[in-house]
Amino acid sequence: MPVRILLVNGPNLNTLGTREPDIYGSETLADIEAKCKKTAESLGLTLDSFQSNHEGELVTKIQEAAKQHQGLLINAGAYTHTSVAMLDALLSLKIPVIEVHMSNIFQRESFRHESYISKAAKGIICGFGSDSYLLALQAMANLLKKA
Amino acid sequence: MPVRILLVNGPNLNTLGTREPDIYGSETLADIEAKCKKTAESLGLTLDSFQSNHEGELVTKIQEAAKQHQGLLINAGAYTHTSVAMLDALLSLKIPVIEVHMSNIFQRESFRHESYISKAAKGIICGFGSDSYLLALQAMANLLKKA
Amino acid sequence: MPVRILLVNGPNLNTLGTREPDIYGSETLADIEAKCKKTAESLGLTLDSFQSNHEGELVTKIQEAAKQHQGLLINAGAYTHTSVAMLDALLSLKIPVIEVHMSNIFQRESFRHESYISKAAKGIICGFGSDSYLLALQAMANLLKKA
Amino acid sequence: MPVRILLVNGPNLNTLGTREPDIYGSETLADIEAKCKKTAESLGLTLDSFQSNHEGELVTKIQEAAKQHQGLLINAGAYTHTSVAMLDALLSLKIPVIEVHMSNIFQRESFRHESYISKAAKGIICGFGSDSYLLALQAMANLLKKA
Amino acid sequence: MPVRILLVNGPNLNTLGTREPDIYGSETLADIEAKCKKTAESLGLTLDSFQSNHEGELVTKIQEAAKQHQGLLINAGAYTHTSVAMLDALLSLKIPVIEVHMSNIFQRESFRHESYISKAAKGIICGFGSDSYLLALQAMANLLKKA
Amino acid sequence: MPVRILLVNGPNLNTLGTREPDIYGSETLADIEAKCKKTAESLGLTLDSFQSNHEGELVTKIQEAAKQHQGLLINAGAYTHTSVAMLDALLSLKIPVIEVHMSNIFQRESFRHESYISKAAKGIICGFGSDSYLLALQAMANLLKKA
Amino acid sequence: MPVRILLVNGPNLNTLGTREPDIYGSETLADIEAKCKKTAESLGLTLDSFQSNHEGELVTKIQEAAKQHQGLLINAGAYTHTSVAMLDALLSLKIPVIEVHMSNIFQRESFRHESYISKAAKGIICGFGSDSYLLALQAMANLLKKA
Amino acid sequence: MPVRILLVNGPNLNTLGTREPDIYGSETLADIEAKCKKTAESLGLTLDSFQSNHEGELVTKIQEAAKQHQGLLINAGAYTHTSVAMLDALLSLKIPVIEVHMSNIFQRESFRHESYISKAAKGIICGFGSDSYLLALQAMANLLKKA
Amino acid sequence: MPVRILLVNGPNLNTLGTREPDIYGSETLADIEAKCKKTAESLGLTLDSFQSNHEGELVTKIQEAAKQHQGLLINAGAYTHTSVAMLDALLSLKIPVIEVHMSNIFQRESFRHESYISKAAKGIICGFGSDSYLLALQAMANLLKKA
Amino acid sequence: MPVRILLVNGPNLNTLGTREPDIYGSETLADIEAKCKKTAESLGLTLDSFQSNHEGELVTKIQEAAKQHQGLLINAGAYTHTSVAMLDALLSLKIPVIEVHMSNIFQRESFRHESYISKAAKGIICGFGSDSYLLALQAMANLLKKA
Amino acid sequence: MPVRILLVNGPNLNTLGTREPDIYGSETLADIEAKCKKTAESLGLTLDSFQSNHEGELVTKIQEAAKQHQGLLINAGAYTHTSVAMLDALLSLKIPVIEVHMSNIFQRESFRHESYISKAAKGIICGFGSDSYLLALQAMANLLKKA
Amino acid sequence: MPVRILLVNGPNLNTLGTREPDIYGSETLADIEAKCKKTAESLGLTLDSFQSNHEGELVTKIQEAAKQHQGLLINAGAYTHTSVAMLDALLSLKIPVIEVHMSNIFQRESFRHESYISKAAKGIICGFGSDSYLLALQAMANLLKKA
Repeated sequence: MPVRILLVNGPNLNTLGTREPDIYGSETLADIEAKCKKTAESLGLTLDSFQSNHEGELVTKIQEAAKQHQGLLINAGAYTHTSVAMLDALLSLKIPVIEVHMSNIFQRESFRHESYISKAAKGIICGFGSDSYLLALQAMANLLKKA
Repeated sequence: MPVRILLVNGPNLNTLGTREPDIYGSETLADIEAKCKKTAESLGLTLDSFQSNHEGELVTKIQEAAKQHQGLLINAGAYTHTSVAMLDALLSLKIPVIEVHMSNIFQRESFRHESYISKAAKGIICGFGSDSYLLALQAMANLLKKA
Repeated sequence: MPVRILLVNGPNLNTLGTREPDIYGSETLADIEAKCKKTAESLGLTLDSFQSNHEGELVTKIQEAAKQHQGLLINAGAYTHTSVAMLDALLSLKIPVIEVHMSNIFQRESFRHESYISKAAKGIICGFGSDSYLLALQAMANLLKKA
Repeated sequence: MPVRILLVNGPNLNTLGTREPDIYGSETLADIEAKCKKTAESLGLTLDSFQSNHEGELVTKIQEAAKQHQGLLINAGAYTHTSVAMLDALLSLKIPVIEVHMSNIFQRESFRHESYISKAAKGIICGFGSDSYLLALQAMANLLKKA
Repeated sequence: MPVRILLVNGPNLNTLGTREPDIYGSETLADIEAKCKKTAESLGLTLDSFQSNHEGELVTKIQEAAKQHQGLLINAGAYTHTSVAMLDALLSLKIPVIEVHMSNIFQRESFRHESYISKAAKGIICGFGSDSYLLALQAMANLLKKA
Repeated sequence: MPVRILLVNGPNLNTLGTREPDIYGSETLADIEAKCKKTAESLGLTLDSFQSNHEGELVTKIQEAAKQHQGLLINAGAYTHTSVAMLDALLSLKIPVIEVHMSNIFQRESFRHESYISKAAKGIICGFGSDSYLLALQAMANLLKKA
Repeated sequence: MPVRILLVNGPNLNTLGTREPDIYGSETLADIEAKCKKTAESLGLTLDSFQSNHEGELVTKIQEAAKQHQGLLINAGAYTHTSVAMLDALLSLKIPVIEVHMSNIFQRESFRHESYISKAAKGIICGFGSDSYLLALQAMANLLKKA
Repeated sequence: MPVRILLVNGPNLNTLGTREPDIYGSETLADIEAKCKKTAESLGLTLDSFQSNHEGELVTKIQEAAKQHQGLLINAGAYTHTSVAMLDALLSLKIPVIEVHMSNIFQRESFRHESYISKAAKGIICGFGSDSYLLALQAMANLLKKA
Repeated sequence: MPVRILLVNGPNLNTLGTREPDIYGSETLADIEAKCKKTAESLGLTLDSFQSNHEGELVTKIQEAAKQHQGLLINAGAYTHTSVAMLDALLSLKIPVIEVHMSNIFQRESFRHESYISKAAKGIICGFGSDSYLLALQAMANLLKKA
Repeated sequence: MPVRILLVNGPNLNTLGTREPDIYGSETLADIEAKCKKTAESLGLTLDSFQSNHEGELVTKIQEAAKQHQGLLINAGAYTHTSVAMLDALLSLKIPVIEVHMSNIFQRESFRHESYISKAAKGIICGFGSDSYLLALQAMANLLKKA
Repeated sequence: MPVRILLVNGPNLNTLGTREPDIYGSETLADIEAKCKKTAESLGLTLDSFQSNHEGELVTKIQEAAKQHQGLLINAGAYTHTSVAMLDALLSLKIPVIEVHMSNIFQRESFRHESYISKAAKGIICGFGSDSYLLALQAMANLLKKA
Repeated sequence: MPVRILLVNGPNLNTLGTREPDIYGSETLADIEAKCKKTAESLGLTLDSFQSNHEGELVTKIQEAAKQHQGLLINAGAYTHTSVAMLDALLSLKIPVIEVHMSNIFQRESFRHESYISKAAKGIICGFGSDSYLLALQAMANLLKKA
């Protein structure tokens, strides 16, 4: 039975490709999700993806991951810095969580330097554009092999 | 005509019983709501209950309480520490509000020590697991008797 | 073709007229929106209005403004002080944004002195009750004439 | 053999009834202690009570509770915010401790928002006037039943 | 009898038109004052204007406004962020005060984010270049009509 | 019937005359109390004096002043900076309180710059050595004459 | 030859009697200066008085005091909290300086709790309305007698 | 004539042996005092010991040490972090003071990292359990030999 | 000509395998460097590696990388949090830099949450044990392909 | 045509020679200005000098320098640490500005460590007494030669 | 086989005897090391000593202690306050560490009050000049006897 | 006998000319040292120069300056902001120290605004590129003439 991984993207990542392309590149979220699924397959993983601008929907999706997925990749976007609710949802998961950012958040405004997600993540990958997601998939595959 | 009380539960409280049971115990939210309704009845109160992971839904529900309820019990979960919107909704209520927490939030991470809810609550009860709710119901009954 | 402006109102502004009338006055949001539309017309603008208690819906609405509107007025309510997600949505808009508040937020609690919206707004108008909206419409008309 | 509970009141609580009655009500400490004893009896508990304006006497009394009592209720008054010595005494107790305040300390001056007592208490009940004590007794009875 | 309004401009606003034109535009203060007087007339108001680089002169002028004017518009320039003396003068006025800034001070250095003037102002208008003054005049006319 | 004033001195003021005489002078507390009584008499006041190193005794004495005295002078010594309990006792007094310090506390270590006593005092006199007491007596006589 | 004392009053004290009378009373500055001169005479002192809203004039006047006066009383008003320049002028004086405030600045906004003047003053008297000046004159007379 | 040393122990040290033995060990205070006296004798010193839970009694005892003792060892317990009054008492002593702690206070809660006692102590010894006292006695003997 | 990459390891990483294995695993640095070289080869890269406990040697090595290498991977160990000198050396490099950590530094002591290295790095990978290095090599290969 | 330089001195520098000579030396401002003019001449520069205790006059003088001078030396005295108005005037100058202090401000009180002037100055020279001015003249001559 | 102890001294301790003798005394480091070796022998210990001004050398030496020594005494000098690298080296040692300072670092500049070494040390001895070392040796001997 | 001065340059200054030339110019360190030696000669001074990337080597070199040099110029580079060890070495020198920076450190990142070197330097010269060194040499020559 295939190992299923959930990729969660937070607010404004649905506008990738149009939003501040000098920071985030010109690929759309659909492009990235497609690339990720292909990479996942090559690693023997099945990737489900989910995006929402709603903190509550993201919380609910994370809760449900406990039942259907063996790993979770998350780019929480702006909620990275403000959502204790998502942190709480992640803390109650038993599966490994990897935090992803396309930009290097430590070179942006100071309110983007703090991450609630980091408190619940196994590891963090940031700054590599859409490659951050692919590297995170590789990292997840490694983690699951060891577990 | 019976006195109606609203019990509001915030994000992740829908996973009670499975989420970090060493902190929150093994009762589900349904168990607790049932227990609360029974206690409410014994106090001559009718209890409505509501849970949501969505800050916006919680704001709307609090606004509506003004029309239908005589008191409000709230465990805002993670939104306790981040939601000015819920504070604003509570501040415009004319009915008494009691803040409830199952855990002693002052013994957890420092970002859980601040509560926006406290600024609008008559009183706070925290640290007694699901008993916190029952004590809050008793406190509400007392408050309404005096008013 | 008429110039279309979007007026966005955040959490609890749907209860205007009943909520803390000593701070916010007795007009309802519908009253204010009607007044704004009339003023907009007199300035040669078409005004669309939107209110939500949901941060996610507000983010989505702001994203969509890029396609249909030439300017955006926003009273983000409590999310002014907490929503990096709305800031991010506004930062990726190319159209002018004006921040509006009915009360003078700098004379209220200190957590209301910081605004994420200000980081993306052309200008700010606050403290004039519902007139803040009308002045902002005038300001927007001026901006669009110059652009 | 009856279960004995100690009720400890800190500085200035001896002037209850005369001191700032708009905050603390018009009952005297004797009134409250009497009410508490009655409630305790109805819960099958024997209540001893102690009040002092002296931090040292309060420390000593807390130390002695280890030998004679099965639970401790404490309203440390102003020492709540300044007494590491009382915290240390409470930390070495093996019996459950419940922190009580008549007012909602989180709506008063900011130096009253921090509590050393909370670091050693099972739970906190505050804001219900003298009812805070009665609710705390009920909470203690519940705790002891479960232990 | 005409309603008289005082427009007060603080330090360095006398160099408008030459100073950092990318931030403040190329109009001179005289240009702006002329434009304001014209707008004032159209609103049925008489506008007096005053500029000084001296905190003391500004304090004195504000004090005198109590006797001769029905409203005060103020762009305190750099003194916005440092002058408790001007705040005190404004606090003792009984007439409405509106704070004006040409730039959006919240997008500049952090020491420009705090305003002593805001503590005494009915409302704030900032970020619209010289239009900020005209909008403030409109706001003042509205305020005086309601009073 | 004579007007009775209470002079309260806090910790270490019993060692005046021997303790750090370069800061506090060579008069003993008895010398100062005698001088104060003489001055009080000349002002038509009866002065009672009390010194303790115990925070609890000072709290109790302040509470009792409500019954027997028309005014209270207090040099709380080190408790000035740490005692919320004494602040609470002073806040519940209805009689005027004057805070006295022999040294200018604002020129000493930074932890001596904050005073809890100031929050409950009508006025403060500090820096004049033992004359601070005599000036405070004069100030109290003036206050009582006006009341 | 008579001993000459300088009384310096800072910004907005020229409006005493009209400005916020609930805080500062209804006496004008002229009334207070007259009362002070009379008290000074009775103490064998000659009092010169000076008021300005200009920080620079106050600095210059303080500098000149070194040549003509044996003591200086100062109520620096708002400059108390912001003027390092006045502190520097006071620090280079060799004559005693007494800081005066009519209100208890420690019970007002937090930015009024810090005083640059205190760093150069022998002592501070605050909170007694216009009596603060008279007490300060008495304190100065005492200081000069001892010197 | 023998050299007399005073050993002062603060709040909760009377419960040594029973209180949190994993931090403080199983020796009682009496055991430690006996061990200290024996060590003192071997160093040619006479040791008096004193313990109190009362800040006021500790202040008074420290004051009296000036007359009867040549050196003072102090473990102020929780008052280490809160007692300016004990600091003041120690500052006026002319004899050497050594601060002792059984635990390494720098590895405990952050509010235990600050010590008022350190500001008046010649040296500090902490972290060695009851050996901290014996080492401090040795240090005191060395100091007195050199003096 | 092969693309040469430099792998820089900072203080204490020479003790990998023996130092706190629960945090850092049981592989030695030699093991990891060997694994990295193999991975590098498979990516068409030549890897040089360098470890030092000396901040100065690390600075010098980073400076030299400008001449010989096309990319730099760095795990600066403890110097991550304290070395402005290494930051300056990295800032003057024109080649891409990737920051690596084996542990999730955001779940450790707060002084490990700040990184000077992040200010000069393209991206960060942390929390995956020795896999962090391999992922960083992959990320570097991707970066160089795109450049 | 000679190159004209303006030397601006702020508050209290008019009392040089008498004010705290241990910090500032015994030369008067006239002495220093004369020395500076002589040095300026030897460097082919014409030096104008200006001193004022008035922030407003200093702002005005700095504004005027734009028209008549090719460089500006400034010792803003106490206004260094408090004057945003002078910073704004300097920021709008196009000519080079050099900040001068006679004392090493970084070894004095912490409120003297921050300089608004530094944000607009090409360079800073401090700590060399009156030589600081002469070195700054030399630095200015160098700057102008290169420009 | 003898028990070997390592004594590590950090930067500038090589200049003992000449550097600020009023703080550190006139003994040279060689004098102190000799005295320590003699004391060590009398305690049945063999003492090796090492001093370096290089953080890297100190890190390396601490790492090596794991193989050859049973205990480590360290006076890290200035690196006490800045070296996370030395902390990390100490944290991975399994042998007891004692922190030594000759001066009472808590009575010096505030940046000397924090110690990274304390986070890894069993105990701290400071303020006794060169006796601090001898007392630490005694403390180490006690520790090793108990282990 | 000639007066010898030591010029100390810290980390990364060896790469001058290549590193961030827009900030630091295109001269190499060798160029600057040559220019300095020439200037020194013209002032009758002999200049020795030293650069290192190693904090430890810089500490040692500063210590040795005490024996061979009459003055020390230092540009500590990044260690300016982090090295207490270099501060300690400088504090024990008896010869004058001048702090030099090529850039105006107060206009760069905030972590570059603090200098440990300033606490030990007679004066500071910064912002003039390589001229900062030549001005510092002139300043040193002046200082030595006066001594």
